[in-house]
Amino acid sequence: MKQVKEITSRDENFAQWYTDIVKKSDLVDYSSMKGSMIIRPYGYAIWENIQSILDKEFKRLGHENLQMPMFIPESLLNKEKEHVAGFAPEVAWVERGGNELLEERVCVRPTSETLFCEHYKKIVKSYRDLPKLYNQWCTIVRWEKTTRPFLRTREILWQEGHTIHATEAEAREETMRMFKVYEDFQKNYLALPVIAGRKTDKEKFAGALETYTIEAMMYDGVALQNGTSHYFGQGFAKSFGITYLDKDNKLQTPYQTSWGVSTRMIGGLIMTHSDDNGLVLPPKIAPIKVIVIPIGSPEQLKDKLEELEESLIANNLSYKIDKTDKSPGFKFAEAEVKGYPIRIELGARDLKENKIVLVRRDTLEKIEVSSNVDEVIKTINKLLDIIQTDMYNKALQRRNSMLYEASNYDEFVDIAKNKPGFIKISWCGNEECENKIKEDTTLKSRCITEEVKDGHCCVCGKEAKYKVYFGKQY
Amino acid sequence: MKQVKEITSRDENFAQWYTDIVKKSDLVDYSSMKGSMIIRPYGYAIWENIQSILDKEFKRLGHENLQMPMFIPESLLNKEKEHVAGFAPEVAWVERGGNELLEERVCVRPTSETLFCEHYKKIVKSYRDLPKLYNQWCTIVRWEKTTRPFLRTREILWQEGHTIHATEAEAREETMRMFKVYEDFQKNYLALPVIAGRKTDKEKFAGALETYTIEAMMYDGVALQNGTSHYFGQGFAKSFGITYLDKDNKLQTPYQTSWGVSTRMIGGLIMTHSDDNGLVLPPKIAPIKVIVIPIGSPEQLKDKLEELEESLIANNLSYKIDKTDKSPGFKFAEAEVKGYPIRIELGARDLKENKIVLVRRDTLEKIEVSSNVDEVIKTINKLLDIIQTDMYNKALQRRNSMLYEASNYDEFVDIAKNKPGFIKISWCGNEECENKIKEDTTLKSRCITEEVKDGHCCVCGKEAKYKVYFGKQY
Repeated sequence: MKQVKEITSRDENFAQWYTDIVKKSDLVDYSSMKGSMIIRPYGYAIWENIQSILDKEFKRLGHENLQMPMFIPESLLNKEKEHVAGFAPEVAWVERGGNELLEERVCVRPTSETLFCEHYKKIVKSYRDLPKLYNQWCTIVRWEKTTRPFLRTREILWQEGHTIHATEAEAREETMRMFKVYEDFQKNYLALPVIAGRKTDKEKFAGALETYTIEAMMYDGVALQNGTSHYFGQGFAKSFGITYLDKDNKLQTPYQTSWGVSTRMIGGLIMTHSDDNGLVLPPKIAPIKVIVIPIGSPEQLKDKLEELEESLIANNLSYKIDKTDKSPGFKFAEAEVKGYPIRIELGARDLKENKIVLVRRDTLEKIEVSSNVDEVIKTINKLLDIIQTDMYNKALQRRNSMLYEASNYDEFVDIAKNKPGFIKISWCGNEECENKIKEDTTLKSRCITEEVKDGHCCVCGKEAKYKVYFGKQY
Repeated sequence: MKQVKEITSRDENFAQWYTDIVKKSDLVDYSSMKGSMIIRPYGYAIWENIQSILDKEFKRLGHENLQMPMFIPESLLNKEKEHVAGFAPEVAWVERGGNELLEERVCVRPTSETLFCEHYKKIVKSYRDLPKLYNQWCTIVRWEKTTRPFLRTREILWQEGHTIHATEAEAREETMRMFKVYEDFQKNYLALPVIAGRKTDKEKFAGALETYTIEAMMYDGVALQNGTSHYFGQGFAKSFGITYLDKDNKLQTPYQTSWGVSTRMIGGLIMTHSDDNGLVLPPKIAPIKVIVIPIGSPEQLKDKLEELEESLIANNLSYKIDKTDKSPGFKFAEAEVKGYPIRIELGARDLKENKIVLVRRDTLEKIEVSSNVDEVIKTINKLLDIIQTDMYNKALQRRNSMLYEASNYDEFVDIAKNKPGFIKISWCGNEECENKIKEDTTLKSRCITEEVKDGHCCVCGKEAKYKVYFGKQY
């Protein structure tokens, strides 16, 4: 029965398991465009849900959507030195339009800070023009060598927020506000027990003064950077000559931020929650919450099925009825691959006894309920909440079981070499210690979670300034 | 007072008027990326409204959204001969990723038929897999030499529907269904009195058997092709080797369609409805339906303003209150530039007499109403409907005044040279006659509106097959 799935075991070969899941559950497909993916309707519906929730929240907080060009002329990209150094090695260059060589080559945007800065310079003249709180949903391109669906692709669907403010305080507040929006969204909707903190200087965004990051830990203990919020200070504004007249008619330089999340979050979802039977989707983000599988002759089921369908619609529960002529076992397996949170087994025999069976996708637990449709709906709504919470807690528990703290370097290296997960250490803040860790263990810093006033750096023994997590990353 | 606008007169210089409008009303801005535009928040909000209405309708009709790669490898683009011949001269080529030359160059998609076909070939195996009704919202690139905001840009935001069917009848039905969706949307929401018909073979889409087009006539009598729906037959399927097993286990070739509309429709909106005072937006598509302009001291107005705001929210009417310290006259002018359908002048003096003044943007007519908020809301809702209908009728009247019918070639040439608008003729269906018209008058065929059984071709005098419109185009 289960051979329909052909999914590699997660504990045997995690990478192959992931590839099987995204393909078999119809989230993505490949094309002759190497390094890019086709996001199929089922995968795109997850992205549409993510977009719809975040877009509402962005707008509620006063942000406006707009659309910048997808190309950046080389001279514009070159305007901020650190920024271009970070991105130039991986951009796609257009040198020819039709049959003609362009006067100046242009790259497909790897991110749009330079375009926003050029625009700000034109539209920001006075304190009255500030703040500008902008966002765009678009596709960016980074010409990666090794790619994996959702996690690292040459084309990335994302949103990039860009804001400009009169004061440092306002810009810092915005940076932290959107950082919190991301953290809450990932915890409450994606059921991801993320760790939020600040990137070290070595790992921060090219051109930022500070980068705040959402770090999710995958089932295999490897980190996924799942969203960042950057405080730019005045760096970009100075490079681009953006100024405004304040209330006293004095020329001032404004402060900027940017923040983004991408379809990578879908990869994070999968690698946190799914299992050997297929996808497991948190109810709040699942495109289809309920799959109904009729078992028995259509005539026997007709009335109940109609009644159920009407109630699902009336209660705004997205659903699907599998009316194909496949066997029930085959349909169950397919429903598991697709990760619909709740399966309703509508059996003619059960109905005679006034029963309906519900199955939770996350635990595969069977729940017998009365066939009274109002009660079915009530149970479904309760179950969806429980599944959402349980998925978060299960992921939290697993994550916690892979969090370590090392008090000396030998211990650190020992854990790093033998145990998957994140390791917390005290750190002096010097890049040399970070580099040594990477050389010795391949681990990179994930994020700084707190400042400390005592203790010693786990690497060099000097005075510690921070607690910081290290881990392997996707 | 009105110098805030600096809008060129529409009747003096239509092209400059258009450029002034899109810029002064904050719809778009330019960047150093030539030929592309920045769609600013006010312009993007119009696009978001268009997307939201059409997307719901597409989904209601069973279509699913997905996302294809934005790049097409050269060998894939080359697979359908007519198609590549139509698009290759204007695509942007990426030849380098980072510092490395690509093994095969890729173009940024000018349209995605080839990618969809390659995908269909993989996922369509049996009649059970048909139909596939797909759509994607994305950006395409056509490296145009002469560009104008919304009308012709190197980057175009659009949607492209792609469907594949078991039978010719189904595919033809889909082609016509989506054609009708476009026509209804443009009439009912954009208030555009469009002419719908079939393109001649000379003007049809590269690779299509038949192209159905929505032709809008601008204020200056020039045509804007504002959306197309294509019937492909089996041409693409044969070039790509797409086949399926039918119910009798026989190998069959499926039938395809594609259909698209773009941000160009926003250009059509502007060039049909707007005037020398600025934008005029149909209420059903306007991001902000009501602008409230307080006149008098804030204390005197406070209570009524609050009451009004609560009612606007409760009645789901999008609004904006201009609380700046500019003069009322200045605010009126600005509101006119932005094209908000209704302006509420909330005057302290009027309030003493229990009056409020409403101003229609389309006619600038002032309407005095009781200051009772329920009545104000009732009047607003009624007015929004009236404005929508009046705008359509006004545009229809103007369009009808520029529709001509020519019964012989001399008459045709005379109208073509002296009068803006569309000219209907009887036509034999031969491309030579179409070419002669273009040579003699620069006019191109817009669309075939009916088949005829008698009469003579206006150009060659042979038997006529069609009635067809000719006109200049953007």
